[in-house]
Amino acid sequence: MSEIRLLPVQGMPEVQEGDDLAALLDESADFEQGDVLVVAQKVVSKAEGRVVRLDEVKASERAGELAGDRDPRELEVVLREARRLVRVRPPLVIAETRHGFVCASAGVDHSNTGTAGTLVLLPLDPDASARRLSERLGVAVIVSDSFGRPFRLGTTDVAIGVAGIPPLLDLRGVRDPIGYELRTTMIAVADEIAGAAELVMGKTARIPAAIVRGLSLRGHGTARDLVMPAERDLFR
Amino acid sequence: MSEIRLLPVQGMPEVQEGDDLAALLDESADFEQGDVLVVAQKVVSKAEGRVVRLDEVKASERAGELAGDRDPRELEVVLREARRLVRVRPPLVIAETRHGFVCASAGVDHSNTGTAGTLVLLPLDPDASARRLSERLGVAVIVSDSFGRPFRLGTTDVAIGVAGIPPLLDLRGVRDPIGYELRTTMIAVADEIAGAAELVMGKTARIPAAIVRGLSLRGHGTARDLVMPAERDLFR
Repeated sequence: MSEIRLLPVQGMPEVQEGDDLAALLDESADFEQGDVLVVAQKVVSKAEGRVVRLDEVKASERAGELAGDRDPRELEVVLREARRLVRVRPPLVIAETRHGFVCASAGVDHSNTGTAGTLVLLPLDPDASARRLSERLGVAVIVSDSFGRPFRLGTTDVAIGVAGIPPLLDLRGVRDPIGYELRTTMIAVADEIAGAAELVMGKTARIPAAIVRGLSLRGHGTARDLVMPAERDLFR
Repeated sequence: MSEIRLLPVQGMPEVQEGDDLAALLDESADFEQGDVLVVAQKVVSKAEGRVVRLDEVKASERAGELAGDRDPRELEVVLREARRLVRVRPPLVIAETRHGFVCASAGVDHSNTGTAGTLVLLPLDPDASARRLSERLGVAVIVSDSFGRPFRLGTTDVAIGVAGIPPLLDLRGVRDPIGYELRTTMIAVADEIAGAAELVMGKTARIPAAIVRGLSLRGHGTARDLVMPAERDLFR
């Protein structure tokens, strides 16, 4: 194992709907072979136009019931984005998204949109977003978002889109020096990389991307591979 | 934000019960001011003698019921380490530990012990373990372990002991450039740091520690601060 470097991508402009995100990233970053680029979901979604204006949303009765002290129109958008509600304690809604991710508000976010009164949704297909950026930029790409977790406070950034690296490091069958199979058999490296990148991105510093340099991962896969299959999920 | 470096601590010997872990780490690593040292739980536990010989364990009936195809004596030790069983699908037991952590097998591990037929338990007080190492070495310390998560496949390394840094970055009340309060208000930086360090530690390469260099975190706290309070836990 050798050193890994986490490099913030500095100097990005505020990303707007319709922007060529790959071009903006390419102007701000100097890539090397083997780099993994981690890009915050927020700017991917904005560039892809996954933005909803609140004044164009009409809240349903159900949204009003869930809203608590939040704007019912926000909950309406959450309900539209949710495939399944996992836990509800108004105004907190933990939902499964179309992609199979389980997260607060089905990934709907009203902060940092650049425009007051708008909500940002998750990309329709964040793996495809990662793949398009990866093809344009010639490096592996992770699209990251901040997810809460059961049992532990605080969010960590995880991978919701992956291209060019394996999301899971599969150690099944690998044995330790005395011959035991390892207890930890699958490492969610894409999530660890996304979390590492968050350390140099910062929520308020307008650094929407980071380069992780020095990894040596071979293989491919998507962030969908990180979704726990329903039959193995003890927490549904 | 500037660069962060993840540096594996190379050349550590196999840690044995009673070893002076701080001295071994100090011999293998060159610390700089502001470094965060991440140490794998396994070596902390071993140095502290948190090891059980299977041939000294007698399995209870309950352990036999939970064991499935595993050794019932292993499950017996898991039951002893568990404060509460959270989910059970034999032989998989997800349990809450004395510290409040929720993880597979209450953190009991039989791999990489260095001795066949032994189990390694979590430290009795991993925050105290981190604090002792931090005082000896003059850097912040995280004791890390690999935990699974609901809804997502694979493990990520998280912090089970913390000294010298804040485990959570509290952004409550912090506003984005257009004045919205941030949705993500608490970032579990200690978990992100632990996961980042895992990327250079490796499960099979006998690198039980890593230095994270370039963070600028001010504050204090413990890994217990990362435990979700029961009244806020929607997944109990």
